[in-house]
Amino acid sequence: MKYDIIIIGGGPAGASAAIYTSRANLTTLVLDKSTTGGALGMTHKIANYPGVPEELSGEELLIRMKSQAEGFGTEFKKTKVQGVRLDGENNKLVYTNTGDVFESKVLILATGGMGKSKSIPGEDELLGKGVSYCATCDAAFYRDAVAAVAGSNEEAVEEALVLSRFAKKVYLLNPKSKLEINADLLAEAEAKENLVIQNGKRIAKVNGEFSVKSITFRSGEELKVDGIFIYLTGLKPIIDYLAGALETTKDSCLNVNENFETSVPGVFAVGDILCREIKQVVVAVSEGVIAALNADKYILGRKKIKSDYN
Amino acid sequence: MKYDIIIIGGGPAGASAAIYTSRANLTTLVLDKSTTGGALGMTHKIANYPGVPEELSGEELLIRMKSQAEGFGTEFKKTKVQGVRLDGENNKLVYTNTGDVFESKVLILATGGMGKSKSIPGEDELLGKGVSYCATCDAAFYRDAVAAVAGSNEEAVEEALVLSRFAKKVYLLNPKSKLEINADLLAEAEAKENLVIQNGKRIAKVNGEFSVKSITFRSGEELKVDGIFIYLTGLKPIIDYLAGALETTKDSCLNVNENFETSVPGVFAVGDILCREIKQVVVAVSEGVIAALNADKYILGRKKIKSDYN
Repeated sequence: MKYDIIIIGGGPAGASAAIYTSRANLTTLVLDKSTTGGALGMTHKIANYPGVPEELSGEELLIRMKSQAEGFGTEFKKTKVQGVRLDGENNKLVYTNTGDVFESKVLILATGGMGKSKSIPGEDELLGKGVSYCATCDAAFYRDAVAAVAGSNEEAVEEALVLSRFAKKVYLLNPKSKLEINADLLAEAEAKENLVIQNGKRIAKVNGEFSVKSITFRSGEELKVDGIFIYLTGLKPIIDYLAGALETTKDSCLNVNENFETSVPGVFAVGDILCREIKQVVVAVSEGVIAALNADKYILGRKKIKSDYN
Repeated sequence: MKYDIIIIGGGPAGASAAIYTSRANLTTLVLDKSTTGGALGMTHKIANYPGVPEELSGEELLIRMKSQAEGFGTEFKKTKVQGVRLDGENNKLVYTNTGDVFESKVLILATGGMGKSKSIPGEDELLGKGVSYCATCDAAFYRDAVAAVAGSNEEAVEEALVLSRFAKKVYLLNPKSKLEINADLLAEAEAKENLVIQNGKRIAKVNGEFSVKSITFRSGEELKVDGIFIYLTGLKPIIDYLAGALETTKDSCLNVNENFETSVPGVFAVGDILCREIKQVVVAVSEGVIAALNADKYILGRKKIKSDYN
């Protein structure tokens, strides 16, 4: 069967695109290697998604979006995409690891980003119980608590600054011997009374049973904390299955125009795969919606999609 | 009292910005001339807001967003803004019709757009009961029904095409003697079997008690329809209170960069005030969130905001 739209990746960007395309009566298939959604599925509590006042987990929010898409007719399939063929104007091919080949007029890529390959012992077990990857999202839970931020890049320092507005004390634990970041940012961090910068601190273990209690350094030293925010490596976009078929920046981030169309007409990309600085669910959702509306236009051939990249 | 952030306009873009700024511990005041939200408040049923599977009214969705913002500490005030003074780097002044003057470090403008000044008799009474302003949103409610679209611009024709995928029959009622639009678009509309274009049709009245039953033309002729989508005049951005203090396009739409910052540093603009082609709640919400995160950066003075306009 040939679909109007195939969406690769069933996180918030992909699921939201599916809500719009299937509601527009376009046959829509979403392929995802997992049924639990990547970065959003790992988020333990969301309190700032506008329109959803109740606190819920990332996975619960994603289930809602998928059920909306299914309600409008979207088909979800659990399978890993291994390759694509993008040269047909109205027939893109998607190859999966089960040997299936799917065909569509439009592709929307929403495969997200990948964290670091190796976790610190205790990190996975305590994720959502004091281990977090987003201070902008979770800082408010650390009012008057002690929090640590592990990392050596500007993002880690900025997130430590956000935390310092809430937490009683924030430890910025830099694994390197010095922080090589913008001097103004460093000065701002150093000026914060409740922000302690420690260089050369490599974490061996995150401790706690039901919640984070402390961290142990490779030196054997232990530090009591109520939570730890980990920024040890950046999110890398998942684009292996594209095999270089689309234009990227030197950091392997896909180039898209303001309609979220890639360098190949009829192929759109949204969400964390774009390596945007702002990583908020509702922003990824909005990108999925904009891509879906433009995909609809592409299929109907009504308007030229603008091609200025940014 | 001086606030960190004043947001003018309490629709989805403004309320979402407030969720993020107040959650980031920035004192936030939202000023709105009405408590019911403009375009979203008028929307009768929303089924495609990702993450909110239940069908609810625009007003209900907006109440949820406002309650989130209030929960994080946002203050809402009902008042009409009459003027602003933007020349202070960290003190913008907002003048209201009650004589109050409010001061903030950052302003976020989210005053939306204004529909046409005069309604057709029956239009206001039957809004949400068969009268709609968005086929992309509501077309799915007209499966196998008869719908009319009133308008003479490309948006009206595009919306009629969307409806024609669902409705049994669509009447495109053009008040002018001919449709002056892109030839390809016109050809596409003319080729649709279930889309009937009628020129010189000026509507006098929308009829129905609990739902739309028919429309009466100025000629006296009556046409039975289940719903009517009205695109008789475009949305104009509400910027009167700015008195020319910010750069705009020739259509009076504010110029903003990718961070939604206007031509004056520390003044951001989001939502329908920007006259974007895509008018979807979640897109306005995302803009509010992006502006809020950049407003936070502006206040903390951490990073230069990019100034390339688009």
